[in-house]
Amino acid sequence: MQYFLSHRNVAIELIRKIDQSHYDFKPTPTSMSAKQLTSHILQSFYQFANTAKSGNPAVFSRKLDVETADLNELAVVYTKETVTLLESLTDDEFERIIDLTKIFGAKMSGAQLLQTAMDHEIHHKGQLFVYVREMGHTDLPLFVKRG
Amino acid sequence: MQYFLSHRNVAIELIRKIDQSHYDFKPTPTSMSAKQLTSHILQSFYQFANTAKSGNPAVFSRKLDVETADLNELAVVYTKETVTLLESLTDDEFERIIDLTKIFGAKMSGAQLLQTAMDHEIHHKGQLFVYVREMGHTDLPLFVKRG
Repeated sequence: MQYFLSHRNVAIELIRKIDQSHYDFKPTPTSMSAKQLTSHILQSFYQFANTAKSGNPAVFSRKLDVETADLNELAVVYTKETVTLLESLTDDEFERIIDLTKIFGAKMSGAQLLQTAMDHEIHHKGQLFVYVREMGHTDLPLFVKRG
Repeated sequence: MQYFLSHRNVAIELIRKIDQSHYDFKPTPTSMSAKQLTSHILQSFYQFANTAKSGNPAVFSRKLDVETADLNELAVVYTKETVTLLESLTDDEFERIIDLTKIFGAKMSGAQLLQTAMDHEIHHKGQLFVYVREMGHTDLPLFVKRG
């Protein structure tokens, strides 16, 4: 939980800097927009955690129905839901092997899946730093915030 | 080792796409250049691993003296040295607590320090993806490559 929040709180800090007028910003025509990238970060971790909780690989691709025009609101909703899920995980769910061959090319334990979720979050948050700097912000946080 | 290489090999693939004419590319005036970012990725992990190996926090800030004008060559040199270091780590070195309060605000075990090294690599590699796309490349690898 501490590890998750040490990165998620930095993502939230970056999201706060994104003005609505920049939601459609993309550094190149083939890039995700700032809004797409942010939603992808928030929704993916939630789906990783959901999959670890349920043990069902199909859950990962389930369509999500939260619709909001405000990225800060989206961050609040998904972070809350993700924290609830992480808090509910049992030792057995951490150790349970899930067959994710079709999605990630491997079978993984719940713990390994959650490490992949962290890596995925950190990867895209790194990209978000470049986006936010390109929007004109130069006062940016460290990539991780402990304690 | 497998975890390290599953990300490092993707970084190397991105570095191969950076033409020498793009070494000074930076997305904004306050960003690191492509050359600086790449060197930072390669050298930092080596220093994280060196610090875990030695148990001495001062090692982290030691000046490195590898000088090469070619980023692919730099990647080969540092990846080789880092692999050697990681292979040499003992269980005791993984578990040893190192006082990194002055650098990272916390005491960490060797294992925790190496997880931070992974997170740092993934963070900056994420940024490198944006850089390389801005250089005109659209055929990019996944953020992690297993097996």
